[in-house]
Amino acid sequence: MSIAPLFNIRLPIVQAPMAGVQDSDLTIAVCKAGGLGSLPCAMLTPQAVLTECEKIRAATDQAFNLNFFCHQPPLVDPDKSAAWKAHFSSYYAQWGFDPDGIGPGAIRVPFGEEMLAVVKLVRPAVVSFHFGLPPAHLLEQVRQTGAKIISSATTVQEALWLQSQGVDAIIAQGLEAGGHRGLFLDTDAGYDVTSQVGTFALLPQVLRAVDIPVIAAGGIADAAGVKAALSMGAAGVQVGTSYLLCTEAKTSAVHRAALQGEGARHTALTNIFTGRPARGIVNRLMKDLNYMSVHAPAFPLAAAASAPLRAKAEAAGRGDFTPLWAGQNTSGCAAISATDMTLRLMGLVS
Amino acid sequence: MSIAPLFNIRLPIVQAPMAGVQDSDLTIAVCKAGGLGSLPCAMLTPQAVLTECEKIRAATDQAFNLNFFCHQPPLVDPDKSAAWKAHFSSYYAQWGFDPDGIGPGAIRVPFGEEMLAVVKLVRPAVVSFHFGLPPAHLLEQVRQTGAKIISSATTVQEALWLQSQGVDAIIAQGLEAGGHRGLFLDTDAGYDVTSQVGTFALLPQVLRAVDIPVIAAGGIADAAGVKAALSMGAAGVQVGTSYLLCTEAKTSAVHRAALQGEGARHTALTNIFTGRPARGIVNRLMKDLNYMSVHAPAFPLAAAASAPLRAKAEAAGRGDFTPLWAGQNTSGCAAISATDMTLRLMGLVS
Repeated sequence: MSIAPLFNIRLPIVQAPMAGVQDSDLTIAVCKAGGLGSLPCAMLTPQAVLTECEKIRAATDQAFNLNFFCHQPPLVDPDKSAAWKAHFSSYYAQWGFDPDGIGPGAIRVPFGEEMLAVVKLVRPAVVSFHFGLPPAHLLEQVRQTGAKIISSATTVQEALWLQSQGVDAIIAQGLEAGGHRGLFLDTDAGYDVTSQVGTFALLPQVLRAVDIPVIAAGGIADAAGVKAALSMGAAGVQVGTSYLLCTEAKTSAVHRAALQGEGARHTALTNIFTGRPARGIVNRLMKDLNYMSVHAPAFPLAAAASAPLRAKAEAAGRGDFTPLWAGQNTSGCAAISATDMTLRLMGLVS
Repeated sequence: MSIAPLFNIRLPIVQAPMAGVQDSDLTIAVCKAGGLGSLPCAMLTPQAVLTECEKIRAATDQAFNLNFFCHQPPLVDPDKSAAWKAHFSSYYAQWGFDPDGIGPGAIRVPFGEEMLAVVKLVRPAVVSFHFGLPPAHLLEQVRQTGAKIISSATTVQEALWLQSQGVDAIIAQGLEAGGHRGLFLDTDAGYDVTSQVGTFALLPQVLRAVDIPVIAAGGIADAAGVKAALSMGAAGVQVGTSYLLCTEAKTSAVHRAALQGEGARHTALTNIFTGRPARGIVNRLMKDLNYMSVHAPAFPLAAAASAPLRAKAEAAGRGDFTPLWAGQNTSGCAAISATDMTLRLMGLVS
């Protein structure tokens, strides 16, 4: 069964929500092609989500997706935060920062009552969650708005758990995918990324395990990849990386440059930017801190330490401290409209 | 273009050579179905290869593949070997071993003059290499036997290098694949496994980069996976894991049990068994030594330390110290004939 009738869209393509590199412009452009445009809400205030949704509704009457994180808000551990900052002391010295003057970093708020109120007002066709699902009483109220509910599974166990919670479809997020891994079970084990599985292995095993539609994600970057995933039994695909150079994306200049360089072929999972494993193009900070660090504070607290360095380096045209989120397959990226990209992914335009 | 006419086989399926878990019985069974049966030679003496090839020729007139490793033979570093053994001291004490009495471990000889002589005698249709290619003067003599030459690429750079050396086809080995990674460029960097890419990402990028046939490998375990890889443009597929339970495989009892357990869903890349990164089902030794160890001596010297523990634990029915090689998708495994498995992979039988 295709996700197209389930979500009331024309094409079985979900644009992956990409917090920090897009707003409603990308959502709208994908919706106009007939795909499911997504708005990442985790780094927005409720008011900002409402404003973006008004823009979407003014531009299109197509279905769209609001995406939320549902991590457990961490308790601040001052010792751990201080120890983490100490790993950055040579950079602070070099760039002239006072470590004590560094702020808390960008907000990343889990889905809660305030965002539930937004969903009730907006009534999007689809609500997607990352890092599991919100508490049952919140989830039930989302369901009652009529929204279809989806979330990401990175293992068969996670897929089975999501199915048991009554989601309408599961995103099988293969480890090729860019940005944050959706993993949420067994995360106490220090995010053992060996649990993460490639799309060719994850998709068939999730399809065998569950009875609900499965959306394939990870490494799918062109029409041949979309066709292959659908032929394996996926009900749809979720594509992120291929949209990063699109004209409607808010991808930064250093990020765009990195995506177009030879270095884009080497990505890695790292937790040093936020505290959770996410895939990005390898850069100086990832190498210096060795990709996955046991010293990183819990998500999203780890982000504060690198934020000022990132800003200053970017102003100098360098991505040394920037999370350059990207999947393992950047070959589909193109500086075209996301409307055309969506049609291209379906093989409808070349 | 399909590999079937190139290799003079009926079905575009290469049975992955799996040193240690198969002999000519598996090769023959795959050849009988019309796939390319493979004989792994790296752990055999030249005489043993000749004997196995006689068995193949007596059983089938179909094309088959001889597979060789072509690693650089390492210099023994006594200090490093002693330090490595020290990591095993608690196991040795527990199982009653004298560390000084531990032998050099199984042979793993790179392709050289002796094996070249075997190839000249046997004249197989295909010769496949792992860990790059042998020196040019040896490779040229293999070519002159009329054998088609293939090798594995784990990155686009490796694929381009193999093409420049004149191979007839490239195996794009996605990171889902079981057993040893074929990686051979930049291996001085301590086998940074972040360079390894899932099949959904690797295959399209290799296809774009080279002009010769590409065989997809990694996570392909059933007819839907084979069809998807071919639809993406692969000229054929290489499948290993799905054959591990086949009646003609020599997979050990503990290995077979592990493949059928829930734990088979969790594999990891590890260098602790041989010194090179390879994918196997997570077991005690992998967890204890943390998967990838900077202390492991160069391939294949690391193998000696765990070999006696492995033998003793296996005799007690335990796989705690056994390399339980497997890919990330064990869902295709079945205790059927490899002839039937090959036909099943093509969707010709259910």
